[in-house]
Amino acid sequence: MEHIMKPIGVIHSPFTDKKQTPIQPTRSNQSGWVEVFPEYAEGLLGLEEFSHIILLYVFHQSDGYKLKVKPFLDDKIHGLFATRYPHRPNPIGLSIVRLLSRRENVLNIDGVDVLDGTPLLDIKPYVPDFDVFTDVKTGWYAHRSKE
Amino acid sequence: MEHIMKPIGVIHSPFTDKKQTPIQPTRSNQSGWVEVFPEYAEGLLGLEEFSHIILLYVFHQSDGYKLKVKPFLDDKIHGLFATRYPHRPNPIGLSIVRLLSRRENVLNIDGVDVLDGTPLLDIKPYVPDFDVFTDVKTGWYAHRSKE
Repeated sequence: MEHIMKPIGVIHSPFTDKKQTPIQPTRSNQSGWVEVFPEYAEGLLGLEEFSHIILLYVFHQSDGYKLKVKPFLDDKIHGLFATRYPHRPNPIGLSIVRLLSRRENVLNIDGVDVLDGTPLLDIKPYVPDFDVFTDVKTGWYAHRSKE
Repeated sequence: MEHIMKPIGVIHSPFTDKKQTPIQPTRSNQSGWVEVFPEYAEGLLGLEEFSHIILLYVFHQSDGYKLKVKPFLDDKIHGLFATRYPHRPNPIGLSIVRLLSRRENVLNIDGVDVLDGTPLLDIKPYVPDFDVFTDVKTGWYAHRSKE
């Protein structure tokens, strides 16, 4: 069974080339903006009172995937689902970014790590009660070969 | 432009009715299991060394959406994207769960909050360096009317 997803907006960033793009939002000091298509603007009501938001988007320059990959931060091969590598069976990306402000259907964000023009699928508020876990084990990442 | 997503597995839980389902994984003490379809099993290599994983899935019993909703935890109306409400333009759910063990293509998980039979779209490792933010403001949630 297939599920059809239709972008609700576009993420804008300074990055126009995959090679420039930071590995994660926490490694980016760049600002960007999210344009939510006007027909969805009403759904943003109150979002500006959250300091952090979860963006779900399409890795639109991803084509195909391999089930074993060498992630950017290591020189060993790992299972794709044990990495955040962008080439995936369902190329959905997840970034948590700081929300600086909202003006109608436009969100100004900090810590952007995606390509300019990335299709946005969903926005969720970041809520520590749901999203923060401590006492976490991180497998290969804890022993990664690169920073 | 449309993006077609095809499930890579199924999430199994004790919940067969939407009304029974916990609001978030952190509010669930139930165990469940993720069946990744055998053709993707190789992509799970090394995932068992992570204690927590991010599941992206389809809210398959969601039909339609409203842009303003009253979330489960409040009695006021908020913009849909300022909530984790399941009825969304792209009905993608996100849960962070504890990974207890892996046996080939089957993952045993704790803290499951989804309906039995939920179509799985992606699995990502939970990495505090990318996913934990402190000093966070949570808008209406901080002043919610329900627990």
